Amino acid sequence: MKPAVDSTRAGAPTASGATPPIAHRSANAPASPIRRLIPHADAAKARGTHVYFLNIGQPDIETPPEMMDVLKDIGIKVVPYGPSMGLTDYRQALLRYYKRAVGVDLSIDDVMVTIAGSEAITFAMAVVTDPGDEVLIPEPMYANYLGFAAMLGITVIPITCKPEDGYHLPSRAAIEAKITPKTKAILYCNPGNPSGVIFDRAEIDLLTDLVRTKNLFLIADEVYREIVFDGEAISALSYPDIADRVIMVDSISKRYSACGARIGAFVTKNREVMAAALRYAQARLCPPTIEQLMAIRAVDLPESYFEAIRTEYRSRRDTVYNAMSSWPGVVCRKPGGAFYQMARLPVDDAEKFIIWLLDDFSVDGATTMLSPAEGFYATKGTGRDEVRVACVLNRDDLARAMNIVEKGLAAYPGRR
Amino acid sequence: MKPAVDSTRAGAPTASGATPPIAHRSANAPASPIRRLIPHADAAKARGTHVYFLNIGQPDIETPPEMMDVLKDIGIKVVPYGPSMGLTDYRQALLRYYKRAVGVDLSIDDVMVTIAGSEAITFAMAVVTDPGDEVLIPEPMYANYLGFAAMLGITVIPITCKPEDGYHLPSRAAIEAKITPKTKAILYCNPGNPSGVIFDRAEIDLLTDLVRTKNLFLIADEVYREIVFDGEAISALSYPDIADRVIMVDSISKRYSACGARIGAFVTKNREVMAAALRYAQARLCPPTIEQLMAIRAVDLPESYFEAIRTEYRSRRDTVYNAMSSWPGVVCRKPGGAFYQMARLPVDDAEKFIIWLLDDFSVDGATTMLSPAEGFYATKGTGRDEVRVACVLNRDDLARAMNIVEKGLAAYPGRR
Repeated sequence: MKPAVDSTRAGAPTASGATPPIAHRSANAPASPIRRLIPHADAAKARGTHVYFLNIGQPDIETPPEMMDVLKDIGIKVVPYGPSMGLTDYRQALLRYYKRAVGVDLSIDDVMVTIAGSEAITFAMAVVTDPGDEVLIPEPMYANYLGFAAMLGITVIPITCKPEDGYHLPSRAAIEAKITPKTKAILYCNPGNPSGVIFDRAEIDLLTDLVRTKNLFLIADEVYREIVFDGEAISALSYPDIADRVIMVDSISKRYSACGARIGAFVTKNREVMAAALRYAQARLCPPTIEQLMAIRAVDLPESYFEAIRTEYRSRRDTVYNAMSSWPGVVCRKPGGAFYQMARLPVDDAEKFIIWLLDDFSVDGATTMLSPAEGFYATKGTGRDEVRVACVLNRDDLARAMNIVEKGLAAYPGRR
Repeated sequence: MKPAVDSTRAGAPTASGATPPIAHRSANAPASPIRRLIPHADAAKARGTHVYFLNIGQPDIETPPEMMDVLKDIGIKVVPYGPSMGLTDYRQALLRYYKRAVGVDLSIDDVMVTIAGSEAITFAMAVVTDPGDEVLIPEPMYANYLGFAAMLGITVIPITCKPEDGYHLPSRAAIEAKITPKTKAILYCNPGNPSGVIFDRAEIDLLTDLVRTKNLFLIADEVYREIVFDGEAISALSYPDIADRVIMVDSISKRYSACGARIGAFVTKNREVMAAALRYAQARLCPPTIEQLMAIRAVDLPESYFEAIRTEYRSRRDTVYNAMSSWPGVVCRKPGGAFYQMARLPVDDAEKFIIWLLDDFSVDGATTMLSPAEGFYATKGTGRDEVRVACVLNRDDLARAMNIVEKGLAAYPGRR
C-alpha cells in the first residue's frame, strides 16, 4: 500500500497562500488497488477489444425479483428517517434468518442494521480500538479493511497466509508472535475474500481460543456465508462461551446480489459494544429506508435460492480452478467458498502482466482484466506475483477469459 | 455530553473471563440527546395522550412524486455497485443544480456523492485532521458533529453563541482565542441547525478571513440552503480566493424531504482533499444506487417547488416564533432559515420540563415533545434552560402544540 499522496504535508502555494496540508492518516490511506489499471481497460475498450472484467466482485446474477418488486408499489409518500438500529420489522426478520442460517438464537437487541458491511466493520473497529491501537488480520485480506483502519487512525498487523497453503492460517505461534499490548482484536473474513479460503474447525477454534486467552475481541466478517462448496462455513456466533467477545459483520450485497443496496448488519451479544456502536449509528441517523424494505423480502427466500446460486458459483469455481491449476508454474489451491480464485503466477510482476494483457494482448479481439493481489497484503512487497480472479461471469465467458490468460502467460515477456 | 458508558474500561466478568473493555473514544461518544426522553413519550402515548412530536427534524412534507415515480419502473434487474464518486449522471446533474442554486461553476471532479451529509462531514473531518487535532465549531451545533469527531479521535472546540444574539457569531477576538496549533478547520452549519440562524455577509467574511490568515480549512454544512426566509444564505463556495480551503457538505434530506434516502455530497476544488476523500469513499465502495437514480430527478424540479416549501416553513416559523416570543421570561430571536426555533425558557432545567410535559401535563388530552438543547452544546452545562422546536407539523398542529407548551410553562413547578 503506497500512499497516493506525499505524506510530508507540504501544501501547494495557491491564491490564498500555502493551502493547509491534509492529515497524515488521509495521505496514507490506500487508494483502490485497481485504480491505476482502469485507464488501460478503458483504452482497450476504445480500441474495440472486448474486455472480460474479472477484477471486481460485482456478480452478474440478478437481484431476486421478490426484492425488486417492492419498488413497484413502495406504499410510502415520504422517504423518512428510519430508526438508527434499522427498521424493527427487518431486524425481527433477521432473527429468523440467523436461526436458520447459523443455528443461533439471537435477540433483537443483538442485531443492528448498518450501511452495508463497510459500515459494520468501521463501527466494529471504532468500538474496540483507540487511535494507535492494533488489529490482527490474516492476509491476503479484503483491501478496504486498510482504508477503514486508516480513517480511524489504527494499525493493521497482518498474519501472512500463503498460496501454497491455500491461504489457510499459519501456526498458533506465528499468530501469537504478532500480539502486543496494543492489540485489541483479530478480524477475519470467512469464507474469505479475496482468497476463497474456508477456515476449518481447528482454525476457528484457534482464533476463538486466542481471543479468550489473550483478552481480545473477534470481528468475524461472514458476508459470503452461503457461498460454500466444500466443507462448512463455521460462524463465530456458534461459540457461546466467547459470545461477549464476538462482533459478527454481515451484508446482503453478495448473498442476494444486491451490492448497490448498501445494507449490512452488526451483530453482537456484548451489550456495551452494541451500545457504543449505536451511539455511532445515531450520529449517522439511519441506513437507507427503501433498501431495508427490499431486504425484508429476501429473508424468507427458500433454500432453493441459495442452492441455485451455489450451483452456479461452484461451476464457475471449477472452470477457473481447473484451468489455472493446469498451467505450468502456477501455484493455486481450490477455494472452498466465496467466488474468488487467487493464484501465484510465474511472472515478474502481476500488475505489469495485467497491464500487458490489457495493452498488448488479445485473443480473437478479446482480453481479460484481473486484480493484482499486492493491494490485498499489508506486508510491503508481498503478493506481487499473485492475482485474484472474481468469478462473476457465466461459465462460457469465464472459460474464454481463462483461455486468454493462459495464452497471455505463455507469451508474456516478463514470464519467469 | 456525558459518556453513556463508564470510561474506566473495566470489563465485566463473563463466561470467558473479564471481557475486554471498549475503546475510550467509543465510551466517550455522545448518545442521542433525546434517547432518555423516548420512554416518557411512549408512556404518554400508551396512556392515550396525543403527543405533538417537535423534537426531530423529520419533515412531514411529501418527497417529490417525481422522485418516488422512479421506483415504479426502475429498469434494472441487478442493484449493482455504483462508482465510488457517485453515478456520473447524478454528478453531472449536480453541476446544473449548483450553478443555479449557488451561482458557481463547478467541474465534475469537484463533486462526490456521499451517503448523506453524515458521511460527507465524516470524510471532511477525517481528511483534514489526525487523531488529537481540533476543529472549531459554533455552538449550539448539530449534535452529531460530536459523534463523528469522537469516532475519528478528534476534539471539538466550541465557539459559544447566545440566544440573546439570535445565535450569531461572537467577536473575531473570541473566535481567534480558540485557535491553537492543533486547530485544523472551522466547521459551521448555515442556515443553522439547531438555531435557524443565517450568518450574514460580515460573519461569512470573518470565517473566510480566519481560515485564510490562520491557514485552516473551512467545512461548510449548507444542507438547508433553500430554506431561507430573511436575508440570504451565502455559500462558502462563493469565495473563489479560498476555494482550495473550502469543503462544502450537502444533503438532499431536508431539501427534498427525503431523509431516509441517505444521499449527500462532498464538494471541494482542492484536488488533494478530494483525492483523499475518494480513498475513503473507495473503501466503502459506493452510495446507494437506487436513491441516486431518484435524486437525479429532483435536480430539475422547478423553482416553484422551493417557493412552496419556503412559504409553508415560513408560516410555521411565524407561528412558533410569534407564540414563544410573547411568553414572559422567554429569550428567543426570529430564525432566518432552516425549520427550527431555539429559545431559553424560564425553567430550572429544560430536560426536566420536557419530561414533565410528557409525564404530568396535557391540554385536552394532548401534550408536546421538544428537544432539550444541552446536547447541542459541547461546553458542559451550557444550554440547560434552552429547547429546540422542529417546525415539522402543519400550522394548526404547531399552534396547538405551542399552546400546550405555553400553558405548561405557566403551570410547571420548576419555573424560575
